[in-house]
Amino acid sequence: MTKENNILRRTRFDRAQDESTSDFLSSMDQDYKILEADIWVDKVHVLMLDKQNIISTEHAIPILKALESIASIDSSRLGTRGFEDVHVFLETELIKRLGDSTGGRLHTARSRNDEVATCIRISLRDDLLITLEAVTRLQGTLLELASGNLTTIMPGYTHLQHAQPTTLAHHLMAYAFALQRDISRLMGCYELVNVSPLGAGAMSSTSFPIDPNLTARLLAFNGVAENSIDAVASRDFIVEALSCFSILGVNLSRLIEEIILWSTAEFGFVQLADEYSSTSSIMPQKRNPDVAELARGRISSLFGSLFSALSICKSLPLSYNRDLQEVTAHLWRGTETMKSILPILNGILSTISINKEAMKDGADRGLPWATDLADLLVSEFDLPFRTAHSVVAEVAKHWEEGKEPENVSQEIAKASKEISGKEILLEECKIREVMDVQSRIRLKRVCGGPSPSEVEKSILNLKKTVKKNESWIDGNRKRIKLAKEEVVALQAALDH
Amino acid sequence: MTKENNILRRTRFDRAQDESTSDFLSSMDQDYKILEADIWVDKVHVLMLDKQNIISTEHAIPILKALESIASIDSSRLGTRGFEDVHVFLETELIKRLGDSTGGRLHTARSRNDEVATCIRISLRDDLLITLEAVTRLQGTLLELASGNLTTIMPGYTHLQHAQPTTLAHHLMAYAFALQRDISRLMGCYELVNVSPLGAGAMSSTSFPIDPNLTARLLAFNGVAENSIDAVASRDFIVEALSCFSILGVNLSRLIEEIILWSTAEFGFVQLADEYSSTSSIMPQKRNPDVAELARGRISSLFGSLFSALSICKSLPLSYNRDLQEVTAHLWRGTETMKSILPILNGILSTISINKEAMKDGADRGLPWATDLADLLVSEFDLPFRTAHSVVAEVAKHWEEGKEPENVSQEIAKASKEISGKEILLEECKIREVMDVQSRIRLKRVCGGPSPSEVEKSILNLKKTVKKNESWIDGNRKRIKLAKEEVVALQAALDH
Amino acid sequence: MTKENNILRRTRFDRAQDESTSDFLSSMDQDYKILEADIWVDKVHVLMLDKQNIISTEHAIPILKALESIASIDSSRLGTRGFEDVHVFLETELIKRLGDSTGGRLHTARSRNDEVATCIRISLRDDLLITLEAVTRLQGTLLELASGNLTTIMPGYTHLQHAQPTTLAHHLMAYAFALQRDISRLMGCYELVNVSPLGAGAMSSTSFPIDPNLTARLLAFNGVAENSIDAVASRDFIVEALSCFSILGVNLSRLIEEIILWSTAEFGFVQLADEYSSTSSIMPQKRNPDVAELARGRISSLFGSLFSALSICKSLPLSYNRDLQEVTAHLWRGTETMKSILPILNGILSTISINKEAMKDGADRGLPWATDLADLLVSEFDLPFRTAHSVVAEVAKHWEEGKEPENVSQEIAKASKEISGKEILLEECKIREVMDVQSRIRLKRVCGGPSPSEVEKSILNLKKTVKKNESWIDGNRKRIKLAKEEVVALQAALDH
Amino acid sequence: MTKENNILRRTRFDRAQDESTSDFLSSMDQDYKILEADIWVDKVHVLMLDKQNIISTEHAIPILKALESIASIDSSRLGTRGFEDVHVFLETELIKRLGDSTGGRLHTARSRNDEVATCIRISLRDDLLITLEAVTRLQGTLLELASGNLTTIMPGYTHLQHAQPTTLAHHLMAYAFALQRDISRLMGCYELVNVSPLGAGAMSSTSFPIDPNLTARLLAFNGVAENSIDAVASRDFIVEALSCFSILGVNLSRLIEEIILWSTAEFGFVQLADEYSSTSSIMPQKRNPDVAELARGRISSLFGSLFSALSICKSLPLSYNRDLQEVTAHLWRGTETMKSILPILNGILSTISINKEAMKDGADRGLPWATDLADLLVSEFDLPFRTAHSVVAEVAKHWEEGKEPENVSQEIAKASKEISGKEILLEECKIREVMDVQSRIRLKRVCGGPSPSEVEKSILNLKKTVKKNESWIDGNRKRIKLAKEEVVALQAALDH
Repeated sequence: MTKENNILRRTRFDRAQDESTSDFLSSMDQDYKILEADIWVDKVHVLMLDKQNIISTEHAIPILKALESIASIDSSRLGTRGFEDVHVFLETELIKRLGDSTGGRLHTARSRNDEVATCIRISLRDDLLITLEAVTRLQGTLLELASGNLTTIMPGYTHLQHAQPTTLAHHLMAYAFALQRDISRLMGCYELVNVSPLGAGAMSSTSFPIDPNLTARLLAFNGVAENSIDAVASRDFIVEALSCFSILGVNLSRLIEEIILWSTAEFGFVQLADEYSSTSSIMPQKRNPDVAELARGRISSLFGSLFSALSICKSLPLSYNRDLQEVTAHLWRGTETMKSILPILNGILSTISINKEAMKDGADRGLPWATDLADLLVSEFDLPFRTAHSVVAEVAKHWEEGKEPENVSQEIAKASKEISGKEILLEECKIREVMDVQSRIRLKRVCGGPSPSEVEKSILNLKKTVKKNESWIDGNRKRIKLAKEEVVALQAALDH
Repeated sequence: MTKENNILRRTRFDRAQDESTSDFLSSMDQDYKILEADIWVDKVHVLMLDKQNIISTEHAIPILKALESIASIDSSRLGTRGFEDVHVFLETELIKRLGDSTGGRLHTARSRNDEVATCIRISLRDDLLITLEAVTRLQGTLLELASGNLTTIMPGYTHLQHAQPTTLAHHLMAYAFALQRDISRLMGCYELVNVSPLGAGAMSSTSFPIDPNLTARLLAFNGVAENSIDAVASRDFIVEALSCFSILGVNLSRLIEEIILWSTAEFGFVQLADEYSSTSSIMPQKRNPDVAELARGRISSLFGSLFSALSICKSLPLSYNRDLQEVTAHLWRGTETMKSILPILNGILSTISINKEAMKDGADRGLPWATDLADLLVSEFDLPFRTAHSVVAEVAKHWEEGKEPENVSQEIAKASKEISGKEILLEECKIREVMDVQSRIRLKRVCGGPSPSEVEKSILNLKKTVKKNESWIDGNRKRIKLAKEEVVALQAALDH
Repeated sequence: MTKENNILRRTRFDRAQDESTSDFLSSMDQDYKILEADIWVDKVHVLMLDKQNIISTEHAIPILKALESIASIDSSRLGTRGFEDVHVFLETELIKRLGDSTGGRLHTARSRNDEVATCIRISLRDDLLITLEAVTRLQGTLLELASGNLTTIMPGYTHLQHAQPTTLAHHLMAYAFALQRDISRLMGCYELVNVSPLGAGAMSSTSFPIDPNLTARLLAFNGVAENSIDAVASRDFIVEALSCFSILGVNLSRLIEEIILWSTAEFGFVQLADEYSSTSSIMPQKRNPDVAELARGRISSLFGSLFSALSICKSLPLSYNRDLQEVTAHLWRGTETMKSILPILNGILSTISINKEAMKDGADRGLPWATDLADLLVSEFDLPFRTAHSVVAEVAKHWEEGKEPENVSQEIAKASKEISGKEILLEECKIREVMDVQSRIRLKRVCGGPSPSEVEKSILNLKKTVKKNESWIDGNRKRIKLAKEEVVALQAALDH
Repeated sequence: MTKENNILRRTRFDRAQDESTSDFLSSMDQDYKILEADIWVDKVHVLMLDKQNIISTEHAIPILKALESIASIDSSRLGTRGFEDVHVFLETELIKRLGDSTGGRLHTARSRNDEVATCIRISLRDDLLITLEAVTRLQGTLLELASGNLTTIMPGYTHLQHAQPTTLAHHLMAYAFALQRDISRLMGCYELVNVSPLGAGAMSSTSFPIDPNLTARLLAFNGVAENSIDAVASRDFIVEALSCFSILGVNLSRLIEEIILWSTAEFGFVQLADEYSSTSSIMPQKRNPDVAELARGRISSLFGSLFSALSICKSLPLSYNRDLQEVTAHLWRGTETMKSILPILNGILSTISINKEAMKDGADRGLPWATDLADLLVSEFDLPFRTAHSVVAEVAKHWEEGKEPENVSQEIAKASKEISGKEILLEECKIREVMDVQSRIRLKRVCGGPSPSEVEKSILNLKKTVKKNESWIDGNRKRIKLAKEEVVALQAALDH
């Protein structure tokens, strides 16, 4: 771009930037994310300037029209090289169409510093709503799978070792509840994002008599930033969004890891549907969980973006510094990742085949009833728990060596004699009861335990919360829609 | 520790761990952070077991007494080697004092998995309150400094270049408002932390008829975790706390960076008090901001802890895995860092000397009134802003070369003629007005601008919010105190 | 892409992936980086298959020709959606042109697992060479600037406080030497990258009688990977490259930070050239170091990529997992960042204006000769250094308060009496000597100190090293060129 | 500590730091790592000062003796509060014993800035050697295990799905070779660490006639830093060490992950020895891999330390800033982690039980010979590989559904007819041959494939490299020992 065509540099500098420098500096490749928001912001700004008589209606009308027409351009054309950013692109385009005399009035009483902060918040707001919807949908899929698997027995794990038997429903609900915390965090983030920095100018607001409350309302914000330096200098809302995504990502990664483990030959608990499986270029038998693995990998990229953002923002003196442009790049990378992973994971879960038999078989291995046996010694014989634990540990040591637990009653008698001095004689029928996985699970009905009745209760509880989440999301969606309609109405009123 | 003395391993394994392995595994060096919480949890658990008739009162009373006596031990003695963790230490101590027959009953109907999660949440809750208090105190100091510097002129910066003049009050209030968002985040985190996992057992709750609501109330929790796998497997509340600390850290780091910059020979805006200054071992004249620099450095360590935690938790299959012990280590490192940095920073700010003259001198350099001049061309001569910007840019180019701006009126006339074709004749008095920093600042009274009246308003607003924060903190403090008192009362009732 | 057209899935799966899933999975957007390498690898593989009689020459020739013709396609067309990766794209293209009967033979005796690892290493090798060249060029610029500023006095800093006077040459040479360590690291990385994984197949090599040494030679590798699982599973060479970039980034960021500081109104040591300056959309006077700031920000993104890569690779079971695709994305992001930042920084330094006067003025402020004064008390009066330090500290305390150091001799006498009991009488001429910055600097001629003679010596030393680096780079460049020529020759021979 | 007792602050500042501030600032809790090095550095410095006649022998002798006596103090006493760092502690201790008149001479011609950099390099050098030895030992264990399992068949994995059969030896050698790259990196790091910064002073060396080459030799360094600013300001050698540890950590984490997976009920490939197993406080049957899990978790902490270090160092202006103290804390955390994890992992592997049967059974599942079957169609029937792949994929699709592959010959015939138009008739004996895992593995003898002969060759190769590594380590150990002996000799000579 020649110096003359550069509306910011034309008189300021004698020498233009060479192409590689201006490419380096340009944010055009990431600004496709805020083009739509920027046009909205421009319109709202012009409507306000007009209402406050800062520019006249005869200038306002053509600017609004030209913005409309630019908005209809295919955004893929946006990549035109040579512009520093989408704001300069839009203003240059306006000036090209309307001359300095009219197009040159758009940027009155504002700066790119408040403008870009406003645009980012608008676009992030949308991405947060999309993310919230996608998490809610995933919760729905988990709730449905759980409802259908209240009595699907599977081994419960600690340390990836069989711990105590549980049900698939119980296991999946752990994720559903974890996601609810992610939703809380995302909503908290939304509230801090949804504040208007417009009017803060470069960093010290403006002496023009602008009306920041009007622009905030027309952009569907909840309020106006209370300090103009903070308004342009802060990106903590971006770091917070990336934190929320990273934490959500951790929760998802654990589910993904289990899907990958469960679909191994060794576990064999599930099979991924064809559409979420890949094969090898050389090994024709392969049914690989590539999609799940890549999702798992991309979650680490969220962490990287979060770390980049923290490291960029650290120790930056107030107010705006250009480093912040790079923070935004990470934000969009993060939102795009989140928005792609969630539906993929939802798709995988919606189409997965569950091998109930393999799960049930697993639940019987590894002496998963050992704790119940110790508990029985406590409740039936008033043995102190620690003693009961030692007694069962002694006998478990032998069974572990691959032997079938036989003569359990006799072994318990021997071990209890040795350890506590008191020989405990356990009836065989009691032992069989303890080993009956299904009935033992039914007894775990406190604290969100695996008992089907307890899990069913928790499903109902969470469904109510999901309803509330949905109505929160809807409320915010509507508010944005109304603000956009008000802009259209105001513009129409101006025309007449 | 010999195999026989190890209450968990004694009958389970034939071979003991060697010292280096058990040292590697032990969390004793970090568990000093949860010792107090653990004794509280133990007492509450025993009171509940007694009330539910899971253990008899004749066992409950001596256990409670022994816990009392252990609680009075100097916690520095805790470091005794050989224990896997504080839970094993306490139970072993009980058994040593009361035998298996009584001491061995403490761990009935629970697991270390739910126990440790409960303890961490209790101790973190305290640290969050301390952090919130310290942030509130820092806000108070900023508000006070701002109140006293409503008209202390200083250069406002973007890109660390002089942008537009502002006041120290305005600048400091940017931080005060940023901290308010940190407070919101910390409070949101507190709510998710303040839920009881006790009763979740190893991962599938228990078949003993425990009363989780009672233990939750006696531990001052807001509710009980709704899924027992999630209760023991999740550490997202830790990652969230570390995120909150990291983001708060970023905000603090910017303030610290400015303190360091401002105390250089080149800026000379402030001088640190003796007690926050260091000298050199070799250069006797030095007054170095070591404390501030170290605080800045430690903020990066918060990031590292956050990333460690994210990376540890990623892809861990449900439910508990021992990796999570390392997450807790990062949590305590984070809370200790936060709790030390905040008072240090508060101390630095409370004792700092401000060189108003140097600030004012700075505000006059770098043509900081250039924007106001362009705005004047817009409002007085109806020049489009972009044209006005080009006109002032043209003349600024010359002034930048170190020349004093002279004949401003004439230069404007020449440049405006060239650029817009229209020669603008600006009266000298108007120009002098624009250059009068103080009066121009007074005009920036929208959107949290630097005008003293606007800043004063924002100080009042934030003071109201601070009051609300304080009462929120107090409320939570009281609730914890009451729960502890109820435990004392229940224990006393049992004794009689 | 329909199931039928998908050469890998056509018979394996009944259902195709929907567009969003295959978009999610596809690496086409990053594979532009390895297209050229892949065609080279394909050719070499075919030449080897032919030589080993694994495929016949009548198949080899048309495959080679088709590859040639595909190579000439504009790589921007590569973005064609629906391909899983560039390997599938190329093979599909071949089959489209030559049918299964010929095109279907390309993938004999190899897998995408060894293929992609080979391609990444080839492209990374190029990027490492480009990076090494750019660092070498930057060293050259630093050496030149240093040579021209051997006696340009400036304040030396510790803690960003004036410490002892130094010269710009001395200061810049600190960076030049730090970069030399970066070069060592990059060269070390190059050696570990430059090994051929081709022939490792999916993970267990192949039973076809391939010749891995031939392909390694034709691809200019230094050797063949010695374990086929390691060959396809390891990406530590990527993590290492990202580490090297991050460390180099840290070194560059410090230089960038100083450029930004030095160009503030407060320091005023340098001015950036027009082409590396930006202005504001609203403040017409601004000359902002946006380019430098953005470079500083992007360095943090290198850290994020490194962390992402570490977190992705952690705990992945052997051998290949699809998560690794995401590691490669970070690699290319890293190399592109590095390749853009280095020339930018070189450009900034090559065009920067130095304000020697401001530097010299700075060097006189802050009692920078205090250490020399203490040293003088040691050498002239045999005072212990610590005592001398205390004496000068005592007097510095007064001078610090803005007073001009007057009656130095008298103050020293008084302080020395008080502190050491011995009144030291220092001649005024000695004091003036100590305060003569220029002559004192000349005395610092050990250990790479600032004395012009010492700095000149270090410039000469480093220049010799730079020569060696250049010849190392050239050697590797030539080797790659020769291998490519051999491929051309072999292909030509085949045709005849 | 009172102001008067503080040897640095006593005359410089009027007010002392309060306890919490000086605790915050103090590095005493990390300086135990450099106490020994510091005393060595002090002695060497004094010997040089004496030799250069900067201090007299009558002062040198008592200082050396006092240092000797301090060195014999139990380092746990080092924690004495109130000292800023170990350097101040030592100098204060000297002055307490010998008065300012003698003890006050130690710090002549140096600064803490060059001193601490020297100490860190000395201690890190040791830790690198210990790490190298531990990695070498781990390689040895892997080589031994591999030697004993050349024909232990196991499934080879990609995407954690059965890919092609391999042997345990082949699999373990992948790690052994990866570790070799870690060794290369650690050695590269060692070379950059092993350079003496002593003599650089605060940042501009000194005008005293010191002999830096002498001190470098007596401290066993390879050379002297060539720029005094770089010498005190750079910590890239720390970041590099943490990078090396992180990359090594990634390699170890993959092995650990497999150990954890392989010891699950589902895989059942290995059993951990008692001494590396833990049990549950509640589930008596548990044999948990806690030690391995914690090691896996701590590897993420290495990443966190690396990122903390990068973030701390980024954008620090030259030369020394106090932030760097925090970098050192991460270094020692990293070296301690590395030094504890490696022996643990070595212990786990040395005592692990391998279930060869379970591995062999696994190798037969999942149609692992499918690739060999496709290859057979290529080599026997000249089918293009892609066609052969499609044919086998078609039939694999049916077998995958849990059916035993029956009538393979017939199914191949049918599928080949359909896909290639040409019916391929494969003899049953050929098919049986392909399915004979053991014999197929023997055919994979290129490119480090699983054939026992190929693996044996690679074991021999690596053993030779291990020998070379060991002698490199020994050489460096000896050099350090010799330097220490020279110091003793020089000190003895002085006494007489």
